[in-house]
Amino acid sequence: MRQDLVDASTDHFIDRLRRAVAIPSISSEDARRPDVVRMGEWLADELKALGAEVELRPLGIQPGKKDLELPPVVLARYGNDKSKRTILVYGHYDVQPAEKSDGWATEPFELTVDDTGRMFGRGSTDDKGPVLGWLNAIEAHQKAGVDFPVNLLMCFEGMEEYGSEGLDDLIKAEAKGTEKPCLTYGLRGCNYYSIEISGPGADLHSGVFGGTVQEPMTDLVRVMGSLVDTDGNILIPGIMEQVAPVNPDEEALYDNIAFTMNDIFEALGSETTIFDKKKETLMRRWRFPSLSLHGIEGAFSGAGAKTVIPARVTGKFSIRSVPNMEIDKTNEIVCKYVRDVFAKLQSKNTLNVFPQHCGQWWVASPKHWNFSAAAKAVERVWGVEPDFTREGGSIPVTLTFEEATGKNVLLLPMGNSTDGAHSINEKLDKKNYIEGIKLLGAYLHYVAEEPQT
Amino acid sequence: MRQDLVDASTDHFIDRLRRAVAIPSISSEDARRPDVVRMGEWLADELKALGAEVELRPLGIQPGKKDLELPPVVLARYGNDKSKRTILVYGHYDVQPAEKSDGWATEPFELTVDDTGRMFGRGSTDDKGPVLGWLNAIEAHQKAGVDFPVNLLMCFEGMEEYGSEGLDDLIKAEAKGTEKPCLTYGLRGCNYYSIEISGPGADLHSGVFGGTVQEPMTDLVRVMGSLVDTDGNILIPGIMEQVAPVNPDEEALYDNIAFTMNDIFEALGSETTIFDKKKETLMRRWRFPSLSLHGIEGAFSGAGAKTVIPARVTGKFSIRSVPNMEIDKTNEIVCKYVRDVFAKLQSKNTLNVFPQHCGQWWVASPKHWNFSAAAKAVERVWGVEPDFTREGGSIPVTLTFEEATGKNVLLLPMGNSTDGAHSINEKLDKKNYIEGIKLLGAYLHYVAEEPQT
Repeated sequence: MRQDLVDASTDHFIDRLRRAVAIPSISSEDARRPDVVRMGEWLADELKALGAEVELRPLGIQPGKKDLELPPVVLARYGNDKSKRTILVYGHYDVQPAEKSDGWATEPFELTVDDTGRMFGRGSTDDKGPVLGWLNAIEAHQKAGVDFPVNLLMCFEGMEEYGSEGLDDLIKAEAKGTEKPCLTYGLRGCNYYSIEISGPGADLHSGVFGGTVQEPMTDLVRVMGSLVDTDGNILIPGIMEQVAPVNPDEEALYDNIAFTMNDIFEALGSETTIFDKKKETLMRRWRFPSLSLHGIEGAFSGAGAKTVIPARVTGKFSIRSVPNMEIDKTNEIVCKYVRDVFAKLQSKNTLNVFPQHCGQWWVASPKHWNFSAAAKAVERVWGVEPDFTREGGSIPVTLTFEEATGKNVLLLPMGNSTDGAHSINEKLDKKNYIEGIKLLGAYLHYVAEEPQT
Repeated sequence: MRQDLVDASTDHFIDRLRRAVAIPSISSEDARRPDVVRMGEWLADELKALGAEVELRPLGIQPGKKDLELPPVVLARYGNDKSKRTILVYGHYDVQPAEKSDGWATEPFELTVDDTGRMFGRGSTDDKGPVLGWLNAIEAHQKAGVDFPVNLLMCFEGMEEYGSEGLDDLIKAEAKGTEKPCLTYGLRGCNYYSIEISGPGADLHSGVFGGTVQEPMTDLVRVMGSLVDTDGNILIPGIMEQVAPVNPDEEALYDNIAFTMNDIFEALGSETTIFDKKKETLMRRWRFPSLSLHGIEGAFSGAGAKTVIPARVTGKFSIRSVPNMEIDKTNEIVCKYVRDVFAKLQSKNTLNVFPQHCGQWWVASPKHWNFSAAAKAVERVWGVEPDFTREGGSIPVTLTFEEATGKNVLLLPMGNSTDGAHSINEKLDKKNYIEGIKLLGAYLHYVAEEPQT
C-alpha cells in the first residue's frame, strides 16, 4: 500500500466518514432502529462496491421487545486465497445517543472538521472511523494496484452500544494511550454484585415511621461502607491475596510508557487521584483489582427532597479482576464478607447478596507474531515503537473471539484518549484517521510476512 | 344538629362524595390541571348552593412552569354573626395520582361502596370526604332548621398533594389512631439535609479509572453510615441533648392509648420494628427525634448493572425534630459532624453539606377550649373519650395557620389509619364519613358553648 496514495485520498475517506456519521444509528433507542438497520445496509453496500462478499446476518427479535428486530451483523470477506493468512477484524456500526442540546458544539450527526484537524461527530472515533479504516485500506490497495496481503474477514455488529451489561465497551477509545500508539495485550475482568436489603412491606413515610422501624438504607450504607476505603483499598480479605505478583520485567515496562499524571488529570477533569505517581496509577488501573460503588436501586434518587423510608434497596458494586483471580472463588469470598458484616449489625431486615454477572480478565502474550506485525506497522507509520499496554476495562467480546477462534487477539486502536467516545463532542483526529488507515494496511502486510509459529 | 337527620341523608351525602371523587383532580400531573380547576369550581358551586359566600382566589403561574396556572384556593364564609365564634377550617380538594393498573381493585375515580361500608375511591379519605364533611354539616343544620352555631371560614386548596417538599401531608390520614378517635396536639418537625460529594469532572468508567481515583460514592456511603445505627440511634452528638425530658404525666398518657404492636406490624407490612413494646415505639414516633436516609442523587439508581463511577453524588437524609430542638442549632451540629467525619477520611474530594429545608415541630396544649370542645364532640358522637395523640410527621400548614392567625389549631381526623390515603385502594368507611359529619357539627356546637379563655 502506498502511503502517499492514502494521503491523496484524504478528502474521499473523510467524505466516507461524513456519510456514515450522518446516519444516526443509535442502538439504544428503539425508534432509531430503522437508522441502525440503514447503517448496516449502507456499510454492506460500501463493502460490496469494494468487491467484498457480504452477508447481512439477522439476529431475530430483541430480547424483551415484542416486535423489535435486532440490527443484522455485517459479515464480509475480502479475498479467499488459501496461500494467504486470514485475519478476522471486529467493529461496530451503532453509536451512542447524541443530541445537540446535550451540549455539543456542533451538530452531532454532521461531521465537522475544524482548523486543527479534529473531526467532530457521533461515531467518528467509536467506531465508524475505525470500521471504515478497513474499507479505506482495501480501497487504497486497489487504487495503488497492490495485491491485498491477507484474506480479511470482517464482523461488524449493530448493537454494541446497547448497554448489554457484559459489553463494557465504553472504554474502547477513551482508554487508549495518548502520546504514543499502543498495542493492548491485557484487560481486567469485572464481577458485578448486588446487595439487596429489605424489611417493610412497602415504602414508608419517615414522619410516621422514622424511629420505629429498622431501615434498610441504614443497613445498606453501613455494609457498602465496609467494602472499600477512600484510597481504593479493597477491605474484603482474600481478594488481594489472589493477585499475581509483579515481576521485575513487568515493572520495568511501566517506566517507559508515554503517560503522565497530567494525562490522567485531564481525563478525570480533576486531580483527585489516589496516587501522585504514574507507575502506581497505571498498575492500579491495569494489573490490580479495584472496587467501585455504583449506586443504589430503590432509594430516592431524584432532585429535591422526599421523606421516604425505602422498603427495599439494592446496592450495586463491582470488582475489576486481574490475573490470577478466580471468578467463583472471588464471588464466594465477597458474598461471605457481606453476609458477615450484615450479621454484625444484628438487623431484623433481610439480606440477599449475589453476583449479577462476571466477565473474565484477559491477558495475551505480546510476543505473538500478531503483536510483532502490529508493532512493526506502528513503527513504519508513526516512526516510534508502540507502548505495550493493558487496559483497566473489560471488553468481553475480546475473550469471546479468542475462545471461539482459538487465535491470538490484538486490540489495535485508531482513536485516542481525548476523543470522548461516549461524551458530547466526540471526535476523531484527521491525522489518526488517515495514519490509522495506513497502519491497518501496514499491519496486514507485516502479518502476511510474519513466520508461522 | 339532629343526628337522625344526618343518618337519613346518608345516601345524599355519599352521592356528593361520589360526584367529587369522579373528578380526577390530580395536582401533580400538569395535564390534569383542568380537572383540578374543575374540582375547585364544583366545590365553589356546592358551597354557593348552601348559601356560603365563595371566592376563588387565583394563585398565578406555578413556579418553574411557563404557562401553567395554579388551581385557585376556595375561600368560603358561612355565617357572619359577630355574636358567634368564627372557626377557620382547612382542607384540600386535589388528590394523589391513581391508575386502575397500579393495582386498584376498583376504578379509582368511581366511588365504590362495598357490603361492609368501605367506600373506595381516590380522595375518599384524603381529603374530599373530610372537606365535604363541612358542607354536609351545614346542610344537616339547614334541613333540621337549626341555627348554625359558629361562623365558618373555609380554606380549601388545590395543590396540597403536589409534593412541595415542605408539605409533608402524606401522613394525614395514615397516621391516625385506629381503634379510638383521637385528637392530635403535636407534630414533629423535619430538617432535611443534602451531603454533596464531588471529585471528577464527569462520570467515569470504572474499568478505566477504578483504582486510580478517589470515588465520591466511597466517601458518601462512609459519611452516611456514620449518622445513624440499625436501631435508629442518632450518632450525631448534641441532638438527643436538646430533647425535652419525658415527665411522668406525659409518660402515663401513653399507657392508655388504643394502639398495639400488631397495628404497627400491619402498617409496616413486617415485624422489623426497633422496639417490641408499644410505649417505646410510640414515644420514638411522637416525641423523640429520628434520622432517616432517603437516598442518593447522581449515582446509578436503575435496574441492572452500570459500571459508572459517579462524579458527584448527593446523599439525602432528614431528622424529625421535637421539642425543644432548635432548627439553627441542629443544623449547625449536623453540618459540623458531617464535615468532621469527612475530614477524617482525608479525601481529595469536595464536600458540601447543607439543610435543604426545615419545618418546625408543633405542640399545642390539649387543655385549650378548642380541644375540650372537640373532645366533648367525640364523646357525644362516638361514646368514648378520644385519645390525645401526637404525630410523627410534619404538617407545616398547621404551624402556618397557628402563626398567621395566632389562634389554637386542632387536627380533627375523619378517616383512620387503614384508609391508605396515598396508596392504591384508598377508602373511607361510610361510618367514619357519616359519624364524622355528626362530629363536625357537634364540635361546632361545643366550640360555640366553650367559655372564652
